[in-house]
Amino acid sequence: MSKLTDVPKRILIGRALRSDRLGETLLPKRIALPVFASDPLSSVAYAPGEVLLVLSIAGVSAYHFSPWIAVAVVVLMFTVVASYRQNVHAYPSGGGDYEVATTNLGPKAGLTVASALLVDYVLTVAVSISSGIENLGSAIPFVVEHKVLCAAAVILLLTLMNLRGVRESGALFAIPTYVFVAGVFTMIAWGAFRGLVLGDAMHAPTADYQIKPEHQGLAGFALVFLLLRAFSSGCAALTGVEAISNGVPAFRKPKSKNAATTLAMMGLLAVTMFCGIIALAATTKVRMAENPAVDLIHNGVAVGADYVQNPVISQVAEAVFGKGSFLFIVLAAATALVLFLAANTAYNGFPLLGSILAQDRYLPRQLHTRGDRLAFSNGIVLLAGAAMLLVWIYGADSTRLIQLYIVGVFVSFTLSQIGMVRHWNRHLATERDQAKRRHMVRSRAINAFGAFFTGLVLVVVLLTKFTHGAWVALLGMCIFFATMTAIRRHYDRVAAEIAAPDTPGEDTVRPSRVHSVVLISKIHRPALRALSYAKLLRSGTLEALSVNVDATETKALRDEWERRGIDVPLKVLDSPYREVTRPVIEYVKSLRKESPRDVVSVIIPEYVVGHWYEHLLHNQSALRLKGRLLFTPGVMVTSVPYQLESSEAAKKRARRRQDWNAPGAVRRGPAAHHDRTKESSPSA
Amino acid sequence: MSKLTDVPKRILIGRALRSDRLGETLLPKRIALPVFASDPLSSVAYAPGEVLLVLSIAGVSAYHFSPWIAVAVVVLMFTVVASYRQNVHAYPSGGGDYEVATTNLGPKAGLTVASALLVDYVLTVAVSISSGIENLGSAIPFVVEHKVLCAAAVILLLTLMNLRGVRESGALFAIPTYVFVAGVFTMIAWGAFRGLVLGDAMHAPTADYQIKPEHQGLAGFALVFLLLRAFSSGCAALTGVEAISNGVPAFRKPKSKNAATTLAMMGLLAVTMFCGIIALAATTKVRMAENPAVDLIHNGVAVGADYVQNPVISQVAEAVFGKGSFLFIVLAAATALVLFLAANTAYNGFPLLGSILAQDRYLPRQLHTRGDRLAFSNGIVLLAGAAMLLVWIYGADSTRLIQLYIVGVFVSFTLSQIGMVRHWNRHLATERDQAKRRHMVRSRAINAFGAFFTGLVLVVVLLTKFTHGAWVALLGMCIFFATMTAIRRHYDRVAAEIAAPDTPGEDTVRPSRVHSVVLISKIHRPALRALSYAKLLRSGTLEALSVNVDATETKALRDEWERRGIDVPLKVLDSPYREVTRPVIEYVKSLRKESPRDVVSVIIPEYVVGHWYEHLLHNQSALRLKGRLLFTPGVMVTSVPYQLESSEAAKKRARRRQDWNAPGAVRRGPAAHHDRTKESSPSA
Repeated sequence: MSKLTDVPKRILIGRALRSDRLGETLLPKRIALPVFASDPLSSVAYAPGEVLLVLSIAGVSAYHFSPWIAVAVVVLMFTVVASYRQNVHAYPSGGGDYEVATTNLGPKAGLTVASALLVDYVLTVAVSISSGIENLGSAIPFVVEHKVLCAAAVILLLTLMNLRGVRESGALFAIPTYVFVAGVFTMIAWGAFRGLVLGDAMHAPTADYQIKPEHQGLAGFALVFLLLRAFSSGCAALTGVEAISNGVPAFRKPKSKNAATTLAMMGLLAVTMFCGIIALAATTKVRMAENPAVDLIHNGVAVGADYVQNPVISQVAEAVFGKGSFLFIVLAAATALVLFLAANTAYNGFPLLGSILAQDRYLPRQLHTRGDRLAFSNGIVLLAGAAMLLVWIYGADSTRLIQLYIVGVFVSFTLSQIGMVRHWNRHLATERDQAKRRHMVRSRAINAFGAFFTGLVLVVVLLTKFTHGAWVALLGMCIFFATMTAIRRHYDRVAAEIAAPDTPGEDTVRPSRVHSVVLISKIHRPALRALSYAKLLRSGTLEALSVNVDATETKALRDEWERRGIDVPLKVLDSPYREVTRPVIEYVKSLRKESPRDVVSVIIPEYVVGHWYEHLLHNQSALRLKGRLLFTPGVMVTSVPYQLESSEAAKKRARRRQDWNAPGAVRRGPAAHHDRTKESSPSA
Repeated sequence: MSKLTDVPKRILIGRALRSDRLGETLLPKRIALPVFASDPLSSVAYAPGEVLLVLSIAGVSAYHFSPWIAVAVVVLMFTVVASYRQNVHAYPSGGGDYEVATTNLGPKAGLTVASALLVDYVLTVAVSISSGIENLGSAIPFVVEHKVLCAAAVILLLTLMNLRGVRESGALFAIPTYVFVAGVFTMIAWGAFRGLVLGDAMHAPTADYQIKPEHQGLAGFALVFLLLRAFSSGCAALTGVEAISNGVPAFRKPKSKNAATTLAMMGLLAVTMFCGIIALAATTKVRMAENPAVDLIHNGVAVGADYVQNPVISQVAEAVFGKGSFLFIVLAAATALVLFLAANTAYNGFPLLGSILAQDRYLPRQLHTRGDRLAFSNGIVLLAGAAMLLVWIYGADSTRLIQLYIVGVFVSFTLSQIGMVRHWNRHLATERDQAKRRHMVRSRAINAFGAFFTGLVLVVVLLTKFTHGAWVALLGMCIFFATMTAIRRHYDRVAAEIAAPDTPGEDTVRPSRVHSVVLISKIHRPALRALSYAKLLRSGTLEALSVNVDATETKALRDEWERRGIDVPLKVLDSPYREVTRPVIEYVKSLRKESPRDVVSVIIPEYVVGHWYEHLLHNQSALRLKGRLLFTPGVMVTSVPYQLESSEAAKKRARRRQDWNAPGAVRRGPAAHHDRTKESSPSA
């Protein structure tokens, strides 16, 4: 495991070199926990606040419902953790929800889950970074004054880091995550000690603020709806729980058992922290409002647009540790850092899911190859662009962004659990061993309850949040779904078109001879090399071809051809309009017309240069000609490269590029265990 | 000649189809005048105003110098016209200043002229469109309130028109130009009639404004400097005079004589209009200030930032015709239209000069081919981008932009005239016919005076305008000059590197055999076609090559290979990291190491699809592999295309693209007469 100090070094020095041992490094539980749990654990930094925000609509009196909402979230958390422990045992390959849904519910359900997850990755970045900025801002006012700018800067930094291929290391995750967890637990313990033992009255900075309720005296259906909305917001604490089920191959043996244990630990930690913060918020009288500028009253006056509403966790820390105290600063920094790490997990997850989808031909094939740099780069840039857009549109306001979140998570939770129920049904149909059957029935019951509960939450989330922003997330899912369906349809159509005929030889007329044509513009080394290679091919006929765009030059070419005694006939095409492409294409077509069973082989000498800008200066007409020739049937196009001196640089660059290490390797586990998509995908 | 009504039709329908007759259409003088003179004639719309603006610095009393400055401009105009009449006779090939300077003063001077002209084309667009917007704004207030936006919109429109290849037609130029000229002459005549015969007192809208002089009571050197600056600004009237010397091939016979006559007509028209407007401005008491907000006083108060200073021509028109009168509106519209046409001439000139420079290898070679769409597009986009940037930076303020203008024009005037003096010297050295010698001596005297006078103006312009913005233009020239020098150096270095050895066979060891390798991923029609073509080539050895990224798929491939009884040995490379490129490259290298005299021919089956987005879905790994193979010595890379059904669409598109007609064809004249760069360029 590399050390934390490696990170700045790598950023300065450049991409990490390939380590063949990396693939074989497996994670012990104490490292796996922070690697996979930074996302769900970090969400306790914003989830409690969201609950209070929604309740504040009915006035501060509604705050007394917050423990009940916490209880509901805890029950949900235990349900989801219990359900995913079943997934981890049943699908140790790390395929995650996409695999479970595809295998058990069919490709449409799988694609729905995939769309939901892709949208969710984008939102993980946007929400985590916005919330991180808000937490950092509680310690450093400058940051919160330039929220969007700072959030954009962090996204850019993460993007660059991931594009350069900074390798994930367990320590990178372990230290801030453990500092964060320790900080929150210290806060809860110290707060409990001060409150219960010392009897201190701790006051949050907003303790003496009043809230002007937007709706006075809510009751009946309206109150229930509000509580459900508050619960929906609290569910933000559950995002990222499924991450471990994607990462089973990265665990030490026994993989499934270790993963399940880690999942339970994570659930326990998250729940304790969530409840502790809710309890401290109630004790220290944290006051939050959805529209603080208008609804938060201090000394009888609304606080106005300049007021910055700090996150619950930082208000509580201020009350417990004291404003500006060392522990307060440490906790704020650790919170921000864990949130940024949570965002970073999406940078690994998005391209990884992309490569699985590509294997199933829902995304361009080039995303498939593991560790392919270009593919990862495209995925990373797409993710960063979408997150940046959301951050910009929503002003880096985590509260508004959270309205979009959660929908995707619960779509994938629900479908995955329904899939698991089907999985057990299928296995129960054939399993005869009574002990195993009992076990399966128990698992099925857990998953069925999970499916029911998460499905219920999904309905609640859709009902309470649709107009608040959930529709944006749904729209995003539809776009992903439609795009991927179209790509798959294209691949299927092409596959049908190019399928080899069953009986060999059925495929129309057999070509009989090759007519080779070497394109010559003037006599130089590349041209001479192309001629000598062409001669070696011993095709039916061989001729050199030049286009007369300039009479003087053509004459010089003919003269030199004769002087050198080149034993290949030189044919010159006229080009009244000084074009090169058209006369060549027409000549090739005329050759084909004369003898349709012949194949025309066009041989083009090409320079190879080292820099992209040099490339702009060469080969453009050759490139265009090649592009056109490819559309002409019965043609093969051969490039004979001539390496110029400057090409050495490009060769080195290409080699370095191949040694590049894709980010997210740690959590994906070794390559050998990675063939799990076999089951669900047609071999393409 | 196509009709004006064609333009909207073409815009709606799309690109004009090729007309082979177009190349043979020659321009009569009455059409050539508007085609070539829209730029210099349109500059009378802003040049008089610039003179008044500068004079206003010394207060309204300095306005009485304006007739003297007009006289100086007239003398300069006659000098330049007389000089260029010599150019037109001596260089009827249409090479223009670049050819004259290169031939007579060497490539450095030629490149300087080219850089100056390129910068000038950019400024022609920026200045003409800004001024057009200001003239339009005098009739339509909305336009002047959103100057930058409207200017950008016009640039965008011109760019799109030129990118789509709307064909220049003589009528398109003739109608607005003649309406403009007629309008200005009507204004001058009617103004003279009202003033001299009717004795009307005509008042410009600013007649009762006062000007607060920025420098009171200037005298001595300071006054001379100010007058020189005013003269420099007035020289804006001379921009574009050289256009005819580039267009001689487009004239009817006798070409040179007709061109010279047109040049004289243009000079006479421009001078008359310029002086007429200056005189009317004095009569109607037009008041303009450099900083109108502060220095223009109305009823004792500065007019403030909201004040819009209308161009002189529109103020005069208002005084003569009456505000909002029919003729006033017609003249404003014609002025704006002529200015936009003037900008359009730069859209033709910029890529044309680019193609000449490319022929001399100062710019990428692909710009060379006449009518090459891509090349023209690049030039047009570069021009539009630079002009847009200038318009944005300078707030579409023609007065500030004009400070950058003129430098380039006079650099090219001066060098061209010096070149002409050398030209006559050279010819006088050999010419023995006394009559011809007398003629040459006379021409030389004219050109020498032209060189002296334009050189003097260049010095004046540099001295008076350097800090006002001329440095930007000089910087632009330096950038063009440096870039083109670097490109030329690159081409020269490559040419030396690839030059064929003098004695044939000197070039190292001869290759002896070809080892062919067909890349196979699975058995489909493209793969079968590649195999059958490869067999036809009868190379030394032939094998099929596959990379094992997935054991199941590889086994299926082997089985089908056997079942089909394909008589080519199948070799499978292992790839523990699921890569494709690296194992293939390494295998090819190992083949070369075993028998260094062999050539390896790699044959790749490729799909051809019809849309760019489909292309994203295919061939990516093939493309990357090809890219890497080109860097490997002793390799030839062959694509065997397989045309999918959707490729039909792309084929049609490509054909249509080839039938595209480059803009600016009318002024360039027929293709056959276009070989005039021969003299100055090494045949490359």
